[in-house]
Amino acid sequence: MTDHSTQNIAVFGLGSMGYGMAQSLLRAGHQVHGFDLLPEAMARFQAEGSAQGTLADIAPHLDAVVAVVLNAEQTASVLFGDQGVVPRLKDGAVVVSCATVPPQFAIDAEARCAAVNVHYLDAPISGGSVKAAAGELSVMAAGRPDAFAAASAVLEATSETVFKMGDQAGPGSVMKSVNQLLAGVHIATMAEAITFGMQQGLAPDRFLEVIAKCAGTSWMLENRAPHIIDGDYTPHSQLNIWLKDLGIVLDIAKSNNFSAPITAAALQQYVAASGMGLGQQDDAAIAKLYARNANQPLPGEES
Amino acid sequence: MTDHSTQNIAVFGLGSMGYGMAQSLLRAGHQVHGFDLLPEAMARFQAEGSAQGTLADIAPHLDAVVAVVLNAEQTASVLFGDQGVVPRLKDGAVVVSCATVPPQFAIDAEARCAAVNVHYLDAPISGGSVKAAAGELSVMAAGRPDAFAAASAVLEATSETVFKMGDQAGPGSVMKSVNQLLAGVHIATMAEAITFGMQQGLAPDRFLEVIAKCAGTSWMLENRAPHIIDGDYTPHSQLNIWLKDLGIVLDIAKSNNFSAPITAAALQQYVAASGMGLGQQDDAAIAKLYARNANQPLPGEES
Repeated sequence: MTDHSTQNIAVFGLGSMGYGMAQSLLRAGHQVHGFDLLPEAMARFQAEGSAQGTLADIAPHLDAVVAVVLNAEQTASVLFGDQGVVPRLKDGAVVVSCATVPPQFAIDAEARCAAVNVHYLDAPISGGSVKAAAGELSVMAAGRPDAFAAASAVLEATSETVFKMGDQAGPGSVMKSVNQLLAGVHIATMAEAITFGMQQGLAPDRFLEVIAKCAGTSWMLENRAPHIIDGDYTPHSQLNIWLKDLGIVLDIAKSNNFSAPITAAALQQYVAASGMGLGQQDDAAIAKLYARNANQPLPGEES
Repeated sequence: MTDHSTQNIAVFGLGSMGYGMAQSLLRAGHQVHGFDLLPEAMARFQAEGSAQGTLADIAPHLDAVVAVVLNAEQTASVLFGDQGVVPRLKDGAVVVSCATVPPQFAIDAEARCAAVNVHYLDAPISGGSVKAAAGELSVMAAGRPDAFAAASAVLEATSETVFKMGDQAGPGSVMKSVNQLLAGVHIATMAEAITFGMQQGLAPDRFLEVIAKCAGTSWMLENRAPHIIDGDYTPHSQLNIWLKDLGIVLDIAKSNNFSAPITAAALQQYVAASGMGLGQQDDAAIAKLYARNANQPLPGEES
C-alpha cells in the first residue's frame, strides 16, 4: 500500500464528471480545492467541504491537479494559460488530465509539464457521472512511471479500473478516442433503431427487452434506451459532447487519411439534433431528430 | 407439457442455421427431412439420420415445415413456387418461417397459408450457428395462437427463448429487422474502430480487452473482434448476408419515409467489401476494407 495520507489536490471542472471525482477525493480524506467557471458549482462544492484559498495561494502546495474540463482548449487554458496552474506548481507535482483530447495534445502537454518538473498523466475517463461520484471510473492512462506514481492517490480514490496504455502520454487519448467513436455511434444507432421499430408498431419497452437478449445489443443501448422509454432527457451526458468527441475522432482520422464514414454519418445526426436545439439535453434526445423526421411521437410527447 | 411425441418435420435450407436446427430436431426425436439446393448438404444431413422419401411422397404427412433459406424470394419459392410445399400440406400443418424477410412478406404468406388451412408462424431467429446447433436460438415469433400451438414442438427443440411479438404475422419480422439494423451497424463500426485504433498504435487484442469493459462495447464487437485479432475469416456468418439484411432494413425504411443514414453508411461499407471479393468470408472481413483504405496491415497479413 502506498501511503497517500492527506494530499493537497485541485480539481478543475466541476461538471457531471469532475464533481463526482472531487467528491470521491474528499471521501478519501484529501484536501480538495474545486474550481469551475460557474460560481454556483464552486459554491455547491464548498458546501461539501472544499478546502479554502485562492489558486495563487494554494498552487505551490498542490500535490496533484485534476483537469476534468470540456476539451483541449479549456485544458490548455487551465494548465498553461495566463492564469495557468502548471508554472506555479512545485517540482514533482502531477497533472491528471481527464478531458477527451487529441493524442497529440497529450504528447505536447507532457513535454510542457516536464520542462517545469511537473509530471503529466494522459488519463481520459469512462463510466459516466454515477461511477464518477462512486469513485469507480475506468481510466485509460498513459504516462511515465513517475507520473503514474505521483498520480496514484488520485487514481485510487476515483477509479475502479486503471488501464495502463503506455509509458508516455498519447495512448490513453488514443484509447479514449476509439471508445468515443464506438459509444457515440452506438447511441445514435440505438435511436435510429428504436424509432424505426416504433414506426412499425414496436413498443419501445419491448424493443429494449428483446434486443438486450439478442445480438443487436450494446452497452450504450441498454444505458440510454431507458431515457427514451421514460421520456426523461435530464442531461446525464449532454448531446453536445458528441459534436466535440466525434469531431475529435474525425479530426484524428482525417489527419491520418483514415476514412470513417459511419462515424461521420453519426456526427451529422448529432449536429442536426443540436441544430434542433437539443444540444443541452441528454444525448438520448438524438431520438427526437429521428422521431421528428418520421412524424413519430416518442413516449411523453403528444401524438 | 405438450405431447409432441414424434412429429414429421421438413427443414428447407441446410446452411449454418438450418443445419443446426435440423440437428436439434433430430435430437428431440422427430422424423426430420432435410432439403437443400446443394446435394452435398443433403448428403451430409442424410448421414446424420435424415428421414427418407421424396418431397412429393412426404408432404401430405408433414406436421411442420421449417423454412431457413436465404431470403424472401427463396422462402416464396419453397412455400409457394412450382414445386412449393404449402399446397400439398395437410390441414393444420404449420410453416415456421425463419428467414429475415420484410414484414409485409410475412403478412402475405400467412394469408396464403390460411387459404389452404395451413398455419404460418413469422419466426425469424437470432443467435448464430453455434446456438442453432445447440437448440438454443432466440426466436422473434408472431402468429395466430393456433400457429404457436402447432409450432410448439419445433420451437421447443430449437430455441432457448421465444419472444412472442404479436398474434398475427408481421411483428416477428419487424423485430428481426430492428435487430439486424443494430447488429449490422455494430459489426461495421467495430471494424471502423479497431482499424482506427491500430493506425494509431493500439494493439487489436488490447482494443478488445479495454473496450469490453468500457461504454463502447457491443455484443457484436465482443463476438466478431476476435476473428480479426486471430486473422481467421472462416465464414460463421457470411459478409454478403449484410447486403441482404441491411438492404431489407433500408427498403422498409424508404417505403415508410424513414431516414436511416447510419444504416445506409454501414451498408455501403459492406457493398464495398463485397466489391473487394470478401462477400463469402466471415462478416468480420469488413475490417479488410478499412485496413486497405488506410494501408494498415491486419493480424495474419504481411505488413
